[in-house]
Amino acid sequence: MTSDGIVERTLGELARLVGGELQGDSELRVTGVAGLEEAQINQISFVVGPQYIRKAHESKAGALIVPPKLRDINKPVIISSNPYLAFAKILTLFAPKPSPPLGVSSKAHIGTEVKLGDSVSIQPNVYVGDSSVLGDRVNLHGGVYVGSEVCIGHDSIIYPNVTILDRCIIGNRVTIHSGTVVGSDGFGFAQDGSSYFKIPQVGIVQIDDDVEIGANCTIDRATMGKTWIQRGAKIDNLVQIAHNVIVGEDGIIIAQVGISGSTKVGKNVILAGQVGVTGHLEIGDNVRVGAQSGIAKSIPPGQTVSGSPAISHRVWLKNCQILSRLPELRKKIMSLEKRLAAIEQAIDS
Amino acid sequence: MTSDGIVERTLGELARLVGGELQGDSELRVTGVAGLEEAQINQISFVVGPQYIRKAHESKAGALIVPPKLRDINKPVIISSNPYLAFAKILTLFAPKPSPPLGVSSKAHIGTEVKLGDSVSIQPNVYVGDSSVLGDRVNLHGGVYVGSEVCIGHDSIIYPNVTILDRCIIGNRVTIHSGTVVGSDGFGFAQDGSSYFKIPQVGIVQIDDDVEIGANCTIDRATMGKTWIQRGAKIDNLVQIAHNVIVGEDGIIIAQVGISGSTKVGKNVILAGQVGVTGHLEIGDNVRVGAQSGIAKSIPPGQTVSGSPAISHRVWLKNCQILSRLPELRKKIMSLEKRLAAIEQAIDS
Amino acid sequence: MTSDGIVERTLGELARLVGGELQGDSELRVTGVAGLEEAQINQISFVVGPQYIRKAHESKAGALIVPPKLRDINKPVIISSNPYLAFAKILTLFAPKPSPPLGVSSKAHIGTEVKLGDSVSIQPNVYVGDSSVLGDRVNLHGGVYVGSEVCIGHDSIIYPNVTILDRCIIGNRVTIHSGTVVGSDGFGFAQDGSSYFKIPQVGIVQIDDDVEIGANCTIDRATMGKTWIQRGAKIDNLVQIAHNVIVGEDGIIIAQVGISGSTKVGKNVILAGQVGVTGHLEIGDNVRVGAQSGIAKSIPPGQTVSGSPAISHRVWLKNCQILSRLPELRKKIMSLEKRLAAIEQAIDS
Repeated sequence: MTSDGIVERTLGELARLVGGELQGDSELRVTGVAGLEEAQINQISFVVGPQYIRKAHESKAGALIVPPKLRDINKPVIISSNPYLAFAKILTLFAPKPSPPLGVSSKAHIGTEVKLGDSVSIQPNVYVGDSSVLGDRVNLHGGVYVGSEVCIGHDSIIYPNVTILDRCIIGNRVTIHSGTVVGSDGFGFAQDGSSYFKIPQVGIVQIDDDVEIGANCTIDRATMGKTWIQRGAKIDNLVQIAHNVIVGEDGIIIAQVGISGSTKVGKNVILAGQVGVTGHLEIGDNVRVGAQSGIAKSIPPGQTVSGSPAISHRVWLKNCQILSRLPELRKKIMSLEKRLAAIEQAIDS
Repeated sequence: MTSDGIVERTLGELARLVGGELQGDSELRVTGVAGLEEAQINQISFVVGPQYIRKAHESKAGALIVPPKLRDINKPVIISSNPYLAFAKILTLFAPKPSPPLGVSSKAHIGTEVKLGDSVSIQPNVYVGDSSVLGDRVNLHGGVYVGSEVCIGHDSIIYPNVTILDRCIIGNRVTIHSGTVVGSDGFGFAQDGSSYFKIPQVGIVQIDDDVEIGANCTIDRATMGKTWIQRGAKIDNLVQIAHNVIVGEDGIIIAQVGISGSTKVGKNVILAGQVGVTGHLEIGDNVRVGAQSGIAKSIPPGQTVSGSPAISHRVWLKNCQILSRLPELRKKIMSLEKRLAAIEQAIDS
Repeated sequence: MTSDGIVERTLGELARLVGGELQGDSELRVTGVAGLEEAQINQISFVVGPQYIRKAHESKAGALIVPPKLRDINKPVIISSNPYLAFAKILTLFAPKPSPPLGVSSKAHIGTEVKLGDSVSIQPNVYVGDSSVLGDRVNLHGGVYVGSEVCIGHDSIIYPNVTILDRCIIGNRVTIHSGTVVGSDGFGFAQDGSSYFKIPQVGIVQIDDDVEIGANCTIDRATMGKTWIQRGAKIDNLVQIAHNVIVGEDGIIIAQVGISGSTKVGKNVILAGQVGVTGHLEIGDNVRVGAQSGIAKSIPPGQTVSGSPAISHRVWLKNCQILSRLPELRKKIMSLEKRLAAIEQAIDS
């Protein structure tokens, strides 16, 4: 850090940090990271592919992170096989550091028999119910509600106004963004004449290590057993996860997706924005689903699908082409019909 | 309850509770309910249809709830014409009981001239505005905001971080899950040149008895008059109800549905997940709408529709078949055209 | 105001307020505004077009706001070229006035070095982080969380349980409805083998003057730089705005829309309900997008598009017609094929 508080690194240090090959002055001073268009002479930027080569040449950045193919650029570079990851690591270095632990605010409510780990931060207006357990360095922001008998692992960050209801289990290094609800009742009602009888939702939600959940999501507790978000899954904002759903390891669930009850999503699945998935399905490992698709039946591992209802992504792409010219196609059919009728008449007469 | 605190019932008691026919040992001890695969020897499970018959035979459950058709199974059974409802009732028996009333936390804010019923529970960090009225046994969890002149009926449960704004009316036995907003302004702006002038939203939201609303929903107040959720309607998570909408009695609105302003939804309607409904429409009683459908015109009572824009569900199902083979159909048309041209040429020459 | 507290105006005053032409008794007393069906003799109602003419004749309203074409109606009228705007202005006159400033509740948490403008209202259970700045007459309702170094301009209203995170900038006369999150982390992860490495989100959200944002929206902070909602934009409920998005001036974003990262939406754009927009696109000024559409490529200014993926609205309307009869079209093709085969056989033989 320099005397005025700005973090400063040499290009050589950054290359070592990301395991990249340095080309240029290893003593070059770097004070931050920015996009190609915004970067200044003392900042480093990054190029993920050849489509950005013109912007890279025009950039004022003092250095660039580039893939091996783009090493011949007129600037000092760090060459990395994964420039986006290298960028992420360097940005982390320059990002604001978390504040030191705050302890427990006197304006927070801590229930009876709560176990608090070392160095927790609990801001004002937090509620922690009886018999809950918080790991070391857990950080609960203002307005967070933690029910009774909840368990939160070490180093988890719960942003303001999140609700975690009774008996749910949150792992280590989990991040939950503001307004998200974990453990609301699953939507279960048994028809009773023309009205409905509520099925009590007595299960829980379990969120494993290294999961990140966006803002204003809803993750319902299981009817019985658990709704389960497995290790490393990343969930964007406004996502709905119904009761008894399983989201597999390292899944990517983009904003506004909805997954209905008891569906099992495999590992490394990507569901793009606004996808809807019916209940009681199995989505295999490594499946990818295009934005706004509707999944109404199970999908074997490895497939890429799109559309509502979803079909093979390749067929869907062709369909989109055809549909953009559907009125023409219809005209063609009408014309064929006329020409055929003319021939039939000619033959008849 | 047994000496170690576990609730225990005989199979005979359970059969009487649900009005079912008992087949097997009426003195069999049951300590809980579980799914077919998870159930243990001291638990009861349930089978709703023949598709689960193999799992039922393999289940370790000590007893089963079955429909009349499946009475010939190798276990003690309770025979019920509605096994799912019977399951719900038995699960309710074994579910955790609500805590005794907590009274009013000293860390809650209670405005002036608030009327509190008997045995209310108001947790820390709750806000109740002036002149509001809470019925008996109302339960406000931490972080709930109740505005001024709000009325909440008996036995209603408001989960953490719910917001109910000024003058809204909530009935008896209403459940509102975390993060839901009742009474936010309707989205109303009058064009004023290229900008917009806000139309004040002076109406209210009225929620009738026995309604359940999921987590992170938004129910806007009316421009004038009321937005109205009628008796027994069940609303899932992340649902948007715009100003002046009416949701009829016993309606089922699945997650992420959006209903635009002034639309009237009849009784016993089912809107599946992610459906969108345009404003100023009438959706008749008993209408069913498939997931992700877009409703752009009114629907007469009793119809089932799907698609965006929605059409008859039967036609939509056929369309889905055809669309999954649309490229083939297009090829066929191209081939017809060539063959026809060949014939025309032959005739000409 | 009359002696019993009811606001009362003459029809002449109202006509002057909205710059409309008066036809009828200028001394007529008006005590409120209501819809055509609900209005009583002492209220004024409005007619925006000829489709409401029958209801207007049947209405009990004492006076009407009408467009020039409908001046010949059997009631006192205010004639306005924009009756909806005139209605909005008159309704504003009769709407409940905001309460006088409340000052700062002793049950709110105000951090260090916070600057508070004149006449602010800060309710109980509010959190304001260190070094934040609130303008004059800012109104923070219960459960609002304002992070550190946040700046909120004059006359902005933040409804209950809103979260505004560190360093975000809110303009003057901004309204944010309950449960909305401003400044949550953008969804950014770099692939690192089969897992993901979090890209720190070090940018901010900037919301300009006269913006209104609905309930339970999520507006993510930029990875670097800013996510930017420009002057006068109006955003409905449950909308997702990803990192680095720009929403242009006077944009209208209807409920449940999702806009992916780095997309730029121009001025005066209308995105109807449940629209999804892919990342890194440019949506030109004055573009209109139909409900539930999926935007996967940039759109030049002035276009109207619909469908998923979106196409010209005109073609889409024709497609919808054709798709509602797709099974018939397919039968026609099958029939053409048979007739053609018959001719080919006849020619061959």
